[in-house]
Amino acid sequence: MNVSHASVHPVEDLPTTDGGLGIGGGNNNNNEFVSAVMGLCIMATTSDFPSVTAFCYLVAATGLQSVWSISQAIIDIYALLVRRSLQNYHVVCLFAIGDGITSTLTFAAACASAGITVLIDNDLNSCAHNHCLQFETATAMAFISWFTTLPSFLLNFWSLASR
Amino acid sequence: MNVSHASVHPVEDLPTTDGGLGIGGGNNNNNEFVSAVMGLCIMATTSDFPSVTAFCYLVAATGLQSVWSISQAIIDIYALLVRRSLQNYHVVCLFAIGDGITSTLTFAAACASAGITVLIDNDLNSCAHNHCLQFETATAMAFISWFTTLPSFLLNFWSLASR
Repeated sequence: MNVSHASVHPVEDLPTTDGGLGIGGGNNNNNEFVSAVMGLCIMATTSDFPSVTAFCYLVAATGLQSVWSISQAIIDIYALLVRRSLQNYHVVCLFAIGDGITSTLTFAAACASAGITVLIDNDLNSCAHNHCLQFETATAMAFISWFTTLPSFLLNFWSLASR
Repeated sequence: MNVSHASVHPVEDLPTTDGGLGIGGGNNNNNEFVSAVMGLCIMATTSDFPSVTAFCYLVAATGLQSVWSISQAIIDIYALLVRRSLQNYHVVCLFAIGDGITSTLTFAAACASAGITVLIDNDLNSCAHNHCLQFETATAMAFISWFTTLPSFLLNFWSLASR
Protein backbone atom coordinates (compact mmCIF):
# COMPACT_ATOMS: atom_id res chain seq x y z
CA MET A 1 0.00 0.00 0.00
CA ASN A 2 1.04 3.58 -0.44
CA VAL A 3 1.25 4.31 3.26
CA SER A 4 4.80 3.33 2.91
CA HIS A 5 5.76 5.49 -0.06
CA ALA A 6 8.77 7.63 0.73
CA SER A 7 11.49 9.49 -1.07
CA VAL A 8 13.49 11.92 0.87
CA HIS A 9 16.08 10.65 3.30
CA PRO A 10 18.59 7.97 2.23
CA VAL A 11 18.28 4.54 3.82
CA GLU A 12 20.88 1.89 4.55
CA ASP A 13 19.11 -1.12 3.09
CA LEU A 14 16.87 -1.60 0.11
CA PRO A 15 13.31 -0.64 1.08
CA THR A 16 11.11 -3.59 2.03
CA THR A 17 7.34 -4.10 2.01
CA ASP A 18 7.20 -3.09 5.67
CA GLY A 19 9.17 0.11 5.60
CA GLY A 20 9.21 1.52 2.11
CA LEU A 21 7.75 1.15 -1.31
CA GLY A 22 7.88 -2.57 -1.64
CA ILE A 23 5.78 -5.10 -3.45
CA GLY A 24 2.42 -4.08 -1.94
CA GLY A 25 2.60 -0.49 -3.19
CA GLY A 26 3.83 -1.51 -6.61
CA ASN A 27 1.13 -4.11 -7.15
CA ASN A 28 -1.54 -1.73 -5.93
CA ASN A 29 -0.38 0.98 -8.34
CA ASN A 30 -0.38 -1.60 -11.15
CA ASN A 31 -3.96 -2.60 -10.34
CA GLU A 32 -5.09 1.04 -10.20
CA PHE A 33 -3.35 1.83 -13.45
CA VAL A 34 -4.47 -1.27 -15.37
CA SER A 35 -8.14 -1.00 -14.35
CA ALA A 36 -8.24 2.77 -14.98
CA VAL A 37 -6.64 2.41 -18.43
CA MET A 38 -8.93 -0.51 -19.32
CA GLY A 39 -12.00 1.50 -18.29
CA LEU A 40 -10.76 4.48 -20.30
CA CYS A 41 -10.00 2.44 -23.42
CA ILE A 42 -13.23 0.40 -23.36
CA MET A 43 -15.35 3.53 -22.98
CA ALA A 44 -13.34 5.48 -25.58
CA THR A 45 -13.78 2.72 -28.19
CA THR A 46 -17.58 3.11 -28.18
CA SER A 47 -18.68 5.50 -30.89
CA ASP A 48 -21.50 7.14 -28.93
CA PHE A 49 -19.90 7.88 -25.56
CA PRO A 50 -19.45 11.65 -26.30
CA SER A 51 -23.24 12.06 -26.48
CA VAL A 52 -23.55 11.29 -22.74
CA THR A 53 -21.89 13.74 -20.33
CA ALA A 54 -21.41 11.11 -17.61
CA PHE A 55 -19.46 8.84 -20.00
CA CYS A 56 -17.21 11.76 -21.02
CA TYR A 57 -16.63 12.43 -17.33
CA LEU A 58 -15.76 8.75 -16.83
CA VAL A 59 -13.13 8.98 -19.57
CA ALA A 60 -11.68 12.14 -17.99
CA ALA A 61 -11.67 10.71 -14.45
CA THR A 62 -10.08 7.38 -15.43
CA GLY A 63 -7.55 9.34 -17.51
CA LEU A 64 -6.60 11.40 -14.44
CA GLN A 65 -6.48 8.22 -12.33
CA SER A 66 -4.12 6.60 -14.87
CA VAL A 67 -1.79 9.63 -14.87
CA TRP A 68 -1.76 9.70 -11.06
CA SER A 69 -1.06 5.95 -10.81
CA ILE A 70 1.77 6.06 -13.34
CA SER A 71 3.27 9.08 -11.54
CA GLN A 72 3.23 7.15 -8.27
CA ALA A 73 4.85 4.15 -9.97
CA ILE A 74 7.61 6.35 -11.42
CA ILE A 75 8.31 7.87 -7.98
CA ASP A 76 8.39 4.35 -6.49
CA ILE A 77 10.87 3.13 -9.12
CA TYR A 78 13.03 6.25 -8.71
CA ALA A 79 13.08 5.79 -4.91
CA LEU A 80 14.06 2.14 -5.35
CA LEU A 81 16.84 3.03 -7.80
CA VAL A 82 18.37 5.73 -5.61
CA ARG A 83 17.67 3.68 -2.45
CA ARG A 84 15.71 6.40 -0.68
CA SER A 85 12.76 6.02 1.69
CA LEU A 86 9.38 7.62 0.96
CA GLN A 87 8.43 7.85 4.65
CA ASN A 88 8.66 11.66 4.67
CA TYR A 89 5.60 13.48 6.09
CA HIS A 90 5.12 15.73 3.04
CA VAL A 91 5.34 12.81 0.59
CA VAL A 92 2.80 10.75 2.55
CA CYS A 93 0.56 13.86 2.75
CA LEU A 94 0.87 14.37 -1.01
CA PHE A 95 0.00 10.73 -1.70
CA ALA A 96 -2.98 10.88 0.70
CA ILE A 97 -4.39 14.04 -0.90
CA GLY A 98 -3.77 12.76 -4.44
CA ASP A 99 -5.32 9.38 -3.71
CA GLY A 100 -8.28 11.05 -1.98
CA ILE A 101 -9.02 13.39 -4.89
CA THR A 102 -8.51 10.88 -7.72
CA SER A 103 -10.43 8.09 -5.97
CA THR A 104 -13.36 10.43 -5.22
CA LEU A 105 -13.49 11.64 -8.84
CA THR A 106 -13.26 8.06 -10.19
CA PHE A 107 -15.98 6.87 -7.78
CA ALA A 108 -18.26 9.76 -8.78
CA ALA A 109 -17.74 9.00 -12.48
CA ALA A 110 -18.33 5.27 -11.93
CA CYS A 111 -21.57 5.95 -10.01
CA ALA A 112 -22.85 8.39 -12.65
CA SER A 113 -22.09 5.87 -15.42
CA ALA A 114 -23.65 3.05 -13.40
CA GLY A 115 -26.83 5.13 -13.02
CA ILE A 116 -27.05 5.58 -16.77
CA THR A 117 -26.18 1.99 -17.72
CA VAL A 118 -28.85 0.72 -15.30
CA LEU A 119 -31.31 3.23 -16.82
CA ILE A 120 -30.54 2.04 -20.37
CA ASP A 121 -30.39 -1.66 -19.54
CA ASN A 122 -32.99 -2.26 -16.80
CA ASP A 123 -35.36 0.71 -16.86
CA LEU A 124 -35.61 1.40 -20.62
CA ASN A 125 -34.57 -2.06 -21.95
CA SER A 126 -32.87 -0.41 -24.92
CA CYS A 127 -29.60 -2.31 -25.02
CA ALA A 128 -30.30 -3.28 -28.62
CA HIS A 129 -29.52 0.30 -29.69
CA ASN A 130 -26.64 0.91 -27.28
CA HIS A 131 -23.22 -0.52 -26.40
CA CYS A 132 -24.42 -1.76 -23.01
CA LEU A 133 -21.67 -4.36 -22.59
CA GLN A 134 -18.90 -1.82 -23.15
CA PHE A 135 -20.56 0.78 -20.92
CA GLU A 136 -21.00 -1.75 -18.12
CA THR A 137 -17.45 -3.10 -18.43
CA ALA A 138 -15.94 0.40 -18.41
CA THR A 139 -18.04 1.27 -15.34
CA ALA A 140 -16.95 -1.94 -13.57
CA MET A 141 -13.30 -1.12 -14.35
CA ALA A 142 -13.73 2.36 -12.87
CA PHE A 143 -15.20 0.81 -9.70
CA ILE A 144 -12.25 -1.61 -9.48
CA SER A 145 -9.84 1.30 -9.92
CA TRP A 146 -11.58 3.19 -7.08
CA PHE A 147 -11.62 0.08 -4.90
CA THR A 148 -7.85 -0.39 -5.29
CA THR A 149 -7.12 3.29 -4.54
CA LEU A 150 -9.34 3.48 -1.45
CA PRO A 151 -7.17 1.35 0.92
CA SER A 152 -4.15 3.34 -0.21
CA PHE A 153 -5.90 6.61 0.74
CA LEU A 154 -7.17 5.28 4.09
CA LEU A 155 -3.76 3.86 5.07
CA ASN A 156 -1.90 7.04 4.05
CA PHE A 157 -4.44 9.10 6.02
CA TRP A 158 -4.10 6.77 9.05
CA SER A 159 -0.32 7.01 8.74
CA LEU A 160 -0.48 10.83 8.78
CA ALA A 161 -2.77 10.92 11.82
CA SER A 162 -0.74 8.44 13.84
CA ARG A 163 2.53 10.40 13.56
CA MET B 1 -17.99 17.56 14.59
CA ASN B 2 -18.58 13.97 15.56
CA VAL B 3 -14.99 13.28 16.44
CA SER B 4 -15.97 14.17 19.87
CA HIS B 5 -19.06 12.02 20.29
CA ALA B 6 -18.85 9.86 23.36
CA SER B 7 -21.06 8.19 25.90
CA VAL B 8 -19.40 5.93 28.34
CA HIS B 9 -17.57 7.41 31.29
CA PRO B 10 -19.14 10.17 33.41
CA VAL B 11 -17.56 13.60 33.26
CA GLU B 12 -17.37 16.37 35.85
CA ASP B 13 -18.51 19.28 33.68
CA LEU B 14 -20.99 19.63 30.89
CA PRO B 15 -19.34 18.52 27.63
CA THR B 16 -18.01 21.39 25.52
CA THR B 17 -17.35 21.76 21.81
CA ASP B 18 -13.71 20.81 22.38
CA GLY B 19 -14.14 17.70 24.43
CA GLY B 20 -17.53 16.23 23.85
CA LEU B 21 -20.67 16.53 21.84
CA GLY B 22 -21.10 20.28 21.85
CA ILE B 23 -22.50 22.73 19.40
CA GLY B 24 -20.44 21.67 16.38
CA GLY B 25 -21.63 18.05 16.45
CA GLY B 26 -25.24 19.05 17.01
CA ASN B 27 -25.30 21.57 14.16
CA ASN B 28 -23.57 19.15 11.83
CA ASN B 29 -26.11 16.42 12.61
CA ASN B 30 -28.90 18.93 12.02
CA ASN B 31 -27.47 19.86 8.61
CA GLU B 32 -27.04 16.18 7.64
CA PHE B 33 -30.56 15.36 8.76
CA VAL B 34 -32.29 18.39 7.22
CA SER B 35 -30.59 18.07 3.81
CA ALA B 36 -31.12 14.27 3.69
CA VAL B 37 -34.81 14.58 4.61
CA MET B 38 -35.33 17.42 2.12
CA GLY B 39 -33.69 15.37 -0.65
CA LEU B 40 -35.82 12.36 0.27
CA CYS B 41 -39.08 14.35 0.38
CA ILE B 42 -38.47 16.31 -2.83
CA MET B 43 -37.63 13.14 -4.76
CA ALA B 44 -40.51 11.18 -3.22
CA THR B 45 -43.05 13.85 -4.22
CA THR B 46 -42.32 13.37 -7.94
CA SER B 47 -44.73 10.89 -9.46
CA ASP B 48 -42.24 9.23 -11.81
CA PHE B 49 -39.22 8.61 -9.59
CA PRO B 50 -39.95 4.85 -9.17
CA SER B 51 -39.41 4.34 -12.92
CA VAL B 52 -35.69 5.19 -12.56
CA THR B 53 -33.59 2.85 -10.40
CA ALA B 54 -31.06 5.57 -9.49
CA PHE B 55 -33.80 7.82 -8.09
CA CYS B 56 -35.17 4.93 -6.00
CA TYR B 57 -31.64 4.36 -4.73
CA LEU B 58 -31.39 8.08 -3.86
CA VAL B 59 -34.58 7.83 -1.80
CA ALA B 60 -33.24 4.74 0.01
CA ALA B 61 -29.79 6.28 0.64
CA THR B 62 -31.12 9.61 1.93
CA GLY B 63 -33.59 7.66 4.08
CA LEU B 64 -30.72 5.71 5.64
CA GLN B 65 -28.74 8.94 6.08
CA SER B 66 -31.70 10.54 7.87
CA VAL B 67 -32.08 7.58 10.23
CA TRP B 68 -28.34 7.61 10.98
CA SER B 69 -28.29 11.38 11.62
CA ILE B 70 -31.30 11.27 13.92
CA SER B 71 -29.76 8.34 15.81
CA GLN B 72 -26.59 10.35 16.34
CA ALA B 73 -28.60 13.34 17.52
CA ILE B 74 -30.51 11.18 20.02
CA ILE B 75 -27.23 9.76 21.39
CA ASP B 76 -25.84 13.32 21.64
CA ILE B 77 -28.90 14.54 23.55
CA TYR B 78 -28.85 11.49 25.84
CA ALA B 79 -25.13 12.03 26.58
CA LEU B 80 -25.79 15.70 27.34
CA LEU B 81 -28.70 14.84 29.64
CA VAL B 82 -26.78 12.23 31.64
CA ARG B 83 -23.58 14.33 31.45
CA ARG B 84 -21.45 11.60 29.97
CA SER B 85 -18.60 11.95 27.50
CA LEU B 86 -18.64 10.21 24.11
CA GLN B 87 -14.83 10.05 23.89
CA ASN B 88 -14.82 6.25 24.21
CA TYR B 89 -12.81 4.40 21.52
CA HIS B 90 -15.64 2.05 20.54
CA VAL B 91 -18.16 4.90 20.22
CA VAL B 92 -15.82 6.97 18.03
CA CYS B 93 -15.12 3.82 15.96
CA LEU B 94 -18.86 3.20 15.55
CA PHE B 95 -19.46 6.82 14.49
CA ALA B 96 -16.54 6.68 12.02
CA ILE B 97 -17.78 3.44 10.42
CA GLY B 98 -21.40 4.64 10.33
CA ASP B 99 -20.45 8.02 8.85
CA GLY B 100 -18.16 6.32 6.31
CA ILE B 101 -20.84 3.89 5.10
CA THR B 102 -23.76 6.34 5.01
CA SER B 103 -21.75 9.13 3.38
CA THR B 104 -20.42 6.75 0.70
CA LEU B 105 -23.93 5.45 -0.07
CA THR B 106 -25.36 8.99 -0.20
CA PHE B 107 -22.53 10.19 -2.44
CA ALA B 108 -23.00 7.21 -4.79
CA ALA B 109 -26.74 7.89 -5.00
CA ALA B 110 -26.18 11.62 -5.58
CA CYS B 111 -23.69 10.91 -8.38
CA ALA B 112 -25.98 8.38 -10.07
CA SER B 113 -28.89 10.83 -9.90
CA ALA B 114 -26.68 13.66 -11.13
CA GLY B 115 -25.64 11.54 -14.13
CA ILE B 116 -29.29 10.96 -15.03
CA THR B 117 -30.47 14.55 -14.45
CA VAL B 118 -27.63 15.82 -16.66
CA LEU B 119 -28.60 13.23 -19.27
CA ILE B 120 -32.26 14.34 -19.22
CA ASP B 121 -31.55 18.08 -19.02
CA ASN B 122 -28.39 18.68 -21.08
CA ASP B 123 -27.94 15.64 -23.34
CA LEU B 124 -31.56 14.87 -24.27
CA ASN B 125 -33.14 18.30 -23.59
CA SER B 126 -36.34 16.62 -22.43
CA CYS B 127 -37.09 18.60 -19.29
CA ALA B 128 -40.51 19.45 -20.67
CA HIS B 129 -41.64 15.87 -20.01
CA ASN B 130 -39.79 15.39 -16.72
CA HIS B 131 -39.59 16.93 -13.23
CA CYS B 132 -36.07 18.23 -13.81
CA LEU B 133 -36.22 20.88 -11.11
CA GLN B 134 -37.25 18.41 -8.42
CA PHE B 135 -34.69 15.82 -9.56
CA GLU B 136 -31.91 18.41 -9.53
CA THR B 137 -32.92 19.84 -6.15
CA ALA B 138 -33.09 16.37 -4.56
CA THR B 139 -29.67 15.55 -6.04
CA ALA B 140 -28.21 18.81 -4.71
CA MET B 141 -29.64 18.07 -1.25
CA ALA B 142 -28.03 14.60 -1.30
CA PHE B 143 -24.67 16.20 -2.20
CA ILE B 144 -25.05 18.70 0.67
CA SER B 145 -25.88 15.84 3.02
CA TRP B 146 -22.73 13.97 1.91
CA PHE B 147 -20.64 17.13 2.20
CA THR B 148 -21.74 17.68 5.80
CA THR B 149 -21.07 14.03 6.76
CA LEU B 150 -17.60 13.87 5.18
CA PRO B 151 -15.73 16.12 7.69
CA SER B 152 -17.37 14.17 10.50
CA PHE B 153 -16.05 10.88 9.04
CA LEU B 154 -12.55 12.27 8.38
CA LEU B 155 -12.25 13.77 11.88
CA ASN B 156 -13.53 10.63 13.59
CA PHE B 157 -11.08 8.56 11.52
CA TRP B 158 -8.23 10.97 12.36
CA SER B 159 -9.21 10.82 16.03
CA LEU B 160 -9.08 7.00 15.97
CA ALA B 161 -5.67 6.92 14.28
CA SER B 162 -4.10 9.49 16.59
CA ARG B 163 -4.94 7.62 19.81
